[in-house]
Order: sequence, then C-alpha cells, then structure tokens
Amino acid sequence: MINFTATYTDHYQLSMAQVYFENGQKEHQAVFDYYFRKLPFDGGYAIFAGLENLLEIIEQLRFSEEDLDYLKKQDYSEEFLDYLKNFKFSGTIMAAKEGDVLFPNMPILQVEANIIEAQIIETILLNLLNFQTLIATKASRMRLVAGERILLDFGLRRAHGPGGYYASRAAIVGGFNGTSNVVAGKDFNIPVSGTMAHSFVQSYDDELTAFRAFSKGRPNDCVLLVDTYNTLKSGIPNAIIIGKEMEAKGQKLMGIRLDSGDLAYLAKESRKLLDEAGLTYVKIAASNQLDEYVIKSLLEQHAPIDVFGVGTNLVTGDPDGALDGVYKLSFSNGTPRLKISESLSKVTIPHKKQVYRLMNEKGELIGADAITMREEEQVSRIYDPQEILKSLPVKNCSTEALLHLVMENGKRTASSRTLMEIAAYSKMRLASLPMEYKRFDNPHIYKVGISKTLKKERENLLKKYKK
Amino acid sequence: MINFTATYTDHYQLSMAQVYFENGQKEHQAVFDYYFRKLPFDGGYAIFAGLENLLEIIEQLRFSEEDLDYLKKQDYSEEFLDYLKNFKFSGTIMAAKEGDVLFPNMPILQVEANIIEAQIIETILLNLLNFQTLIATKASRMRLVAGERILLDFGLRRAHGPGGYYASRAAIVGGFNGTSNVVAGKDFNIPVSGTMAHSFVQSYDDELTAFRAFSKGRPNDCVLLVDTYNTLKSGIPNAIIIGKEMEAKGQKLMGIRLDSGDLAYLAKESRKLLDEAGLTYVKIAASNQLDEYVIKSLLEQHAPIDVFGVGTNLVTGDPDGALDGVYKLSFSNGTPRLKISESLSKVTIPHKKQVYRLMNEKGELIGADAITMREEEQVSRIYDPQEILKSLPVKNCSTEALLHLVMENGKRTASSRTLMEIAAYSKMRLASLPMEYKRFDNPHIYKVGISKTLKKERENLLKKYKK
Repeated sequence: MINFTATYTDHYQLSMAQVYFENGQKEHQAVFDYYFRKLPFDGGYAIFAGLENLLEIIEQLRFSEEDLDYLKKQDYSEEFLDYLKNFKFSGTIMAAKEGDVLFPNMPILQVEANIIEAQIIETILLNLLNFQTLIATKASRMRLVAGERILLDFGLRRAHGPGGYYASRAAIVGGFNGTSNVVAGKDFNIPVSGTMAHSFVQSYDDELTAFRAFSKGRPNDCVLLVDTYNTLKSGIPNAIIIGKEMEAKGQKLMGIRLDSGDLAYLAKESRKLLDEAGLTYVKIAASNQLDEYVIKSLLEQHAPIDVFGVGTNLVTGDPDGALDGVYKLSFSNGTPRLKISESLSKVTIPHKKQVYRLMNEKGELIGADAITMREEEQVSRIYDPQEILKSLPVKNCSTEALLHLVMENGKRTASSRTLMEIAAYSKMRLASLPMEYKRFDNPHIYKVGISKTLKKERENLLKKYKK
Repeated sequence: MINFTATYTDHYQLSMAQVYFENGQKEHQAVFDYYFRKLPFDGGYAIFAGLENLLEIIEQLRFSEEDLDYLKKQDYSEEFLDYLKNFKFSGTIMAAKEGDVLFPNMPILQVEANIIEAQIIETILLNLLNFQTLIATKASRMRLVAGERILLDFGLRRAHGPGGYYASRAAIVGGFNGTSNVVAGKDFNIPVSGTMAHSFVQSYDDELTAFRAFSKGRPNDCVLLVDTYNTLKSGIPNAIIIGKEMEAKGQKLMGIRLDSGDLAYLAKESRKLLDEAGLTYVKIAASNQLDEYVIKSLLEQHAPIDVFGVGTNLVTGDPDGALDGVYKLSFSNGTPRLKISESLSKVTIPHKKQVYRLMNEKGELIGADAITMREEEQVSRIYDPQEILKSLPVKNCSTEALLHLVMENGKRTASSRTLMEIAAYSKMRLASLPMEYKRFDNPHIYKVGISKTLKKERENLLKKYKK
C-alpha cells in the first residue's frame, strides 16, 4: 500500500550526509544502537514489533527519480546527487527477534554501515519500530487481562492516518485475534471481522427489518448491533426473534454487539434474555472506548462478554503517544563513541554489543539481562558481580544471546517470519516472563546490567571526553 | 507516497454493502454527517484539516485487481464482486473550508450518495480528517503562544508510522513554518529544514572539528548543535570560533541549537556569550519535548529562543490520541433518520443541513454558529430565540454559510487549494476568533445552536421512534 523511498527521512540526515560525502568520509564505518529509555504505560516490559516491515523496506530503499528531481532544487551538489542516485543500504543489522519482550536501555537493534547509509535509514527505522512496539505492547496488556477471549482491532477510523495500517499488524503481534481493517487483513494475512453499524439499523424503517435483512445476507457471521434504539427493550428481543428464525432455517445467530451504556449490566441482562430464549450459543461482543483497564474491570464484574472490539485506545497507544526509542552512535571510524549527559542514565554505551538473557531451568526469565561487548562470549565475564550476580540465583541458569544477524551487506540473512509466527513467539516469550513484571501497578523492575569490561570501557571513555 | 484503494475500509462496510446490494437497496440515497463531539486538548476550538487529501483520494478510490482477488476468497457473491469491480464514488459532498475554526456537534462535512458508496468511504474519511484535524489544532496552539517565532516540525521519528506524512502537512495548516520531513516537503511543497544530530558531532574526534566540517559543507544554513558534551563550556565557545571563521570568509553562522538541559537558562547564557562575541545575528533554536505549555513557559521567562523544533507532542497530538469524529446517518431512502441515546447530546440531528456563522461588523466571530435545515435560507429563521438570540447582540451581524459544495457526482467542483492558501486562510480565521475561545484554561464555550424548524423536526422524529 505504501511506497517508501529514501526521502522518508529527516532533512538533517541529508545535510549531514552531504558533509560526510564532501569531506571524504563516506566510507567511514559507524555503529548505531536502537533502544528506548522508558517503558510505555508505566508497564514492566515492551513487545518488539515492526522489524519484518523495516527489513523489507530497507532492502528496497532507493531515491526515486521524483525524489532526485526534488533534491536537485534543494541546493545539493551534482556529485552528491549522483551518489544518492546509486544509494542503497549495504550494511549489517543485528536485532532482537520481533515479538520478544524487551526492557529499557538495552540495544534492541544495531546498525553497522557506512555513516551516510546509517544516517539516512535512521528516521524510517525509528518511525516504524517506535510505533509498532508501542501498539504491540498496548495490545499485549489487553491480552493479559482478556485471557482466551477474542480481541478485535476496530481502530482504523481513529488511527493516525495510514499509521493505522501498521497498528492493525502490531495488534496481532501483541496478541489480538483479528482486525476490521481490510487492507491490513489482505496485506498481512490477518483474519478480518466486523458486524454492522448503527447506520445499517437506522437505514431501515424498523430494527427488526434491519436485523432480518442482515441475517439473510450474512447467515454465516451474523452479529447484530442491538443498541441503536433500546438495548434490552428492543435490540435483544428483536435479536432473539431473528435467532429463532435462523434456527428454523438450520442457521445460527453468531452474536450480538453492545456499543454503549453500562456494558457490564447490559451484558449480564442480555445473556439472561438470550439464555432464557435458548440461544445460549449466541456470543456477546462489546465495544466503546475499551482499554486494558475497562476490560479488566468488566471481567472482574463477571460481565459475560466473549468478544472485545477495541479502537482508539489500542491504535493510538493512549495515553502514551509514542515510544521514546532513540538511535545513538556507539562506534565510528574505528573508535568507540559516547554522548555525555548530566544524568548517567542518558550517557550512551560505546562499542558493538550483545545482550544476554538469563533463564532458569523452566525457561522462565529470571529478571536480568546483561549488555556485553560483542566479543565477550563467556558467561562468566558477562555480569558485574557488584550489581547483579549477588542478588540473583544465577547458578543453573542458561543464557541466550538476544541480538541476531538479520541483514548482511544490505541483504536479509533469513527468510521473513510470518505475522502468525511472530505472534506465537511473542505469546510464548511473554508467558515466560513472571507475572510481577506484567502487572499494571508498580511492576517489578527488570534488571539490565552492563558487563564489567564494557563498564570499564565506558568509564575510560567518559574520563577522556571530560578532559 | 501512499496508494489508497477501497480496501482501506472496515470489514463491516463491505458486509453491509453486500446486504444492501443483495436486498436491492444499492440505489437508496443516504446522507451522512461528519462531526466531532469533544474538542481536543480541553481547548475552545478545532482547526479543520485533511479535506484536500481526502477529496483527491476519494475521486480516485477503486478496488484494485489485488483487492478483488483477496475479496474473492472472503465469501462474497460473484455479483457483488462484479459491482465492486466497477465501484467509484459518485456522490456529492458539502464541507467546511479546510483550515476553518470549528466547534463540537456541528456538521463539518456531509456526504450524499447511494448508501453503499457512502459506507465504503466512511473509514478513510474518518481516518484522514480525524487525524489531521487533531494535529492542525495542536499546531495552532503552539502558534498562538509562539507569536512570530519560527515553529518547525521535527516529529517524523516519533509519529505513528506513515501517519507522520500527514502530520507534517497538518502542522502547516495549523501555523507551523516548516518540517524536517523530506517526503512531506516534496509532496506538499513545505519548506524543509533541520540541522545536525549528536551523532555528527560524536563521529569526529572533537567538537570543533565537527563544527568546522559542517560549516564548510553547509555555509548557507549552518546551525550547530551545541549540547553533545557541554553547552556553555564547549558547545557555545566552539560555535563562536566557527562563527568568527565564517565571518572572515564573508559567511554567516545561521544559528545554534539547544536540545537538552534547562532551555531557558541555556538560551539566556548562550545569547549572552554570542552577543559578547559580536554574533548578535546568530539565532537560537531549541528542541526537546516541547509543547504549547513549555513554549509558553519559556517565553514567559523571556528565553531568547528564535526557533522551536517540536517533535513527539506535535505529531502524536499528545495528550489526546485522537479526535472523536463520527459519521452519522441523517437521511436515508427519502426519510430523515435518528440515532437515539440516553443523553440528548448524543442524539443525532436528522436531515440535510447547513451551518451559519455570525460575525460582527469587524468580521469577528461573535461566538455562535447555528445548524439549520439545508433549505432554510432566511436568517430570521435560523436561530432559536429561546436559546441563542436573547444572549447575543445579533443586530448588525452578518452570516456566512460554512458548508460548501466540494464534490458533485464524484467529481471535485473546485480546483484544489494549495497548502499555503489553506494555512493563510486558517491564520485569518483563527485571528477573527476572540481570545477567550483560544485561551488554554477553561476557554469560553462557543455556542452552536439548532434552528427552531430543525429542532421541531428532531423532536417529532424522537417521539415517533420512542413509540
């Protein structure tokens, strides 16, 4: 649906690129880390999403003829424009697996490339990964409270324009079952669903006639929206009439949908009326400004809701507008690099790195990952005993390297994973994270440590810069 | 950049369309109103944005071969798919002017079309207008506090994926001066700008060398980022050295940018140092989590900042994730239609409508718009004297109809307006809205009334439905 070209970037990337080019630095190799500093939703984890889309796009990213014509008018030299004409990303990318559970300040992805290519892809990388990770994380919170109930994305109308295309995909990574978004369904192979709108009911002279027309047209997935006039006095009684008419034809009414009013009360009363009529198999769907807290509350009240349709609060990530992911230089032209800040937590970590995760015998995450230099391979050297080892039962633990080679010389190194594979992986991974990191209120803080060797490297570099 | 086809819609639009089609209702004419119920940001107005894009897209909207192949696998009849193959929007649209200031519960746009076409375009209409209106409104709030200072959109990296493409456009409608987003600059003819990143400074062995390289490569728009190591002890002194070197070559350093720390303090100290060095012309740009409140506070502290670069809080509309715009049926198959709700404010308004705005002799909005039936043309019949006329000085007022014909039989009726024309119109319109509606805290509520005739129509219809 979307044709990304290399002008999907910030102007300063091209300004810097031009300077590097004209300064003879275009072959300088750089390493950039992608990571975020703060977990969204005051939660205890994030779900990594967007990687497959990003790799596919980067592999094909070029400046189009139209892009070059435009840039020609923008005060760039002929030589630089010639260079851009042949631009393609030829670097290497290491990344965590899409769907994995991640924590602040750990490198999620590392780009190694010449500095021009690494800069030009920065914006699209942040744009796609920040957003999908935000939404997948949000979706996963609803999955945590919804148990095995059906979760559907109804958000396209409130999404940020075409951002909705990727929101629907990210929702699946985070554990949703389907979407109303047809183009996302088509392109990402997501089950699509949806019922009827109020306008459908209104467009007939009475509700029963509307329901009957719909049941004839969609006998296999007939879900009736019952709140256009009066849910309990009109909507449900009419739905029951239709349910009975369908039974007489050997069909089954699939469900009813509540979209306003007190959903807990209406679901209970609706269930009662449907059950009394013998329509125990008819499902109850609910929508209207749902989020993880409302779903949790509804289920705590034992509202007999089988399907939740979530819109705005899913696809916009409300109340958090963005994940604060950043892309920081950690190595350039043969030298480790640092950005200094007043607070130590914002000082970047130099060098090419790897992240190791500790798991117990059951394969559960024990609450500690460790950032090491890429070359440190021995577990014994990974942890700074002062900060981590002492507090954790690390014997009998296994470690897993989180960053994998996904692109080499601009080419993907592995075939793409399907969305359903990613969602299944994410589900498994989230299940292995203990509940105390997943609770909504004051979740336990997952430790991310830095290896002794790397810490020493950073301190030395800090000293050097401060001089 | 984006190829919208007619599967950019919700699944239920197609389900309903199929039922209408098979029920012989495909020629039933319907009228839908687009409006929102709640102003974003607890503000007093909204800026309408996205219309030009929407009209351009709707005029071209078709199901592609790929779409049809996909739908063929989705349990639709051969006849219905044949109908979709020839789908194009052939209806009529009345709309407010893009850039106008708007208020809750007034129809902003009305679609008159056969019910299938009207339903299929619902999702894309809501998706594009809700988002751009949100962002244009947010941008206008920053413009209100920034006065004549430069406002730049730096948000693409934190935008909701490709939603950022339209966010950059909407920011201009709301009064921004430029963007860092190159593809939006290209496609919407927006001035692009941007300076350097921390990575640029880090990639050199020292800051001065980095600055010097940049000033040579970009002498005409050289803005130096001064906070990589230490703003006042290193960044500004090095920028002054470069400024002097540029002067010696007959060039001028354009500016410096602050991106961390206490921006008010650093701007004042930086200004002092630059002025003492004779670089009074060097502009100060600031960025880092700005929004309308931070900009207001900085200027109240007399921070000498000339340029504000705004990212996340602009392009995500934080803290409001979405405008709650809806699309409601008001007329169908020859009959006015209503949706009932427990609260009267959520009961829809039937019929084709027009909106009139009252202005005083100076052309200022006096705080009252009125919704009438389309046919009511006499001002004397517009207002319900009980609710509005009494409280307002309406003599010597002029009225203006807000809804204009923009599409007829699927074709645009007027040539498109450029983004700069829209921005200029919005600026003029916002200037004519008195300050009490624009203040951030408890803004005055702009009255939107319903004409006597229309009110009576609605009451009659309500009575009928309640029976």
